[in-house]
Amino acid sequence: MPKIVDHAARRDEIAQVACRVVANYGFEQATVARIARAAGYTTGMVAHYYESKQEIILAALRLMLLRIEERLTRERERDEANLLEALSEALAIDSQRFTECAFWMAFWGQVSADKKLKRLNAWVHREYMRLFERCFSEYWSEWSAWPQATRDQVLRSVVTFMNGLTASAVTSPRDWPADMQVEQLRLQLDLLRQWAGKRATKSR
Amino acid sequence: MPKIVDHAARRDEIAQVACRVVANYGFEQATVARIARAAGYTTGMVAHYYESKQEIILAALRLMLLRIEERLTRERERDEANLLEALSEALAIDSQRFTECAFWMAFWGQVSADKKLKRLNAWVHREYMRLFERCFSEYWSEWSAWPQATRDQVLRSVVTFMNGLTASAVTSPRDWPADMQVEQLRLQLDLLRQWAGKRATKSR
Repeated sequence: MPKIVDHAARRDEIAQVACRVVANYGFEQATVARIARAAGYTTGMVAHYYESKQEIILAALRLMLLRIEERLTRERERDEANLLEALSEALAIDSQRFTECAFWMAFWGQVSADKKLKRLNAWVHREYMRLFERCFSEYWSEWSAWPQATRDQVLRSVVTFMNGLTASAVTSPRDWPADMQVEQLRLQLDLLRQWAGKRATKSR
Repeated sequence: MPKIVDHAARRDEIAQVACRVVANYGFEQATVARIARAAGYTTGMVAHYYESKQEIILAALRLMLLRIEERLTRERERDEANLLEALSEALAIDSQRFTECAFWMAFWGQVSADKKLKRLNAWVHREYMRLFERCFSEYWSEWSAWPQATRDQVLRSVVTFMNGLTASAVTSPRDWPADMQVEQLRLQLDLLRQWAGKRATKSR
């Protein structure tokens, strides 16, 4: 079925370009026409693959989720893999990931003005939480022994911190080179792991 | 000089409305015409007070900085004032502050697409850092005894975390009631204070 494969590949390509266009021009300026132009298609050709900008954005979000899942899996296959390296996959530490993070900022910037985007965001946020939780349980042997409330707290703090890193790295890239982002996340993980460990010991 | 006072008051009023319009409609949709309409003025009347949207946004940023500085000062005048309460003044814990945080998200979402906004953001970020640093030095007696690198690390982590809380509260308001935001910040402050204290003891 070469035609269907082509269709899927084209859809992915357009979604990928859309992510870059949103990162570079902001959410509103990333019109279907501009996305089409950046992908080397006419607006009419894009309409063949997507019915609306909303649909393109949804596809872009799906692609990013898939990519992050792949990266997390790849990380796990390495011998000395650790949680810090796995989670760093979601930070703005190279140009591709910077674009993804810039997309996120543009997207978040529009969420409070748009109910449909809010729903999309809620869905993708849940998916990320699930992925991250899986990482914690795979890399931290004590994770599953902690009470649910402790795990929730750690997960919530780490995701909040990573969102903050995303905001900082995208809005002040010069102040936030890759190694500083990773160092900050390392401290955060260390502190939360110690805190959760102590709390678990006390409650026994 | 009643006329000059009026002029200043009108400028503030328009800037305040602009903050709300940006929060509600997103950065791009917050045109001068829409801001004027929301303030009950004609576009021509707004042009009397501001030359451009950029100027209105700058004024809105200045107002927010001023407001946060006032809140921090007010907080200090209370007897049992503490750092957590002071810093919470910058979180989305009531409707006015939610609007300010939503403005920030919309603004950040546009920063990577607009060099002028990037400069504005760098300036306002430095101002916030200065304000927050002042808070730390006033509320934490050990602050000034810590090495510069430790203070930088704590300040950077806390600001990153607060940016993350802003992003979470604005994009998922239901998941982030005020008390949860404050609780998360409390844990963060506790952990970083302990970490910095231990580090300072070791280095002695």
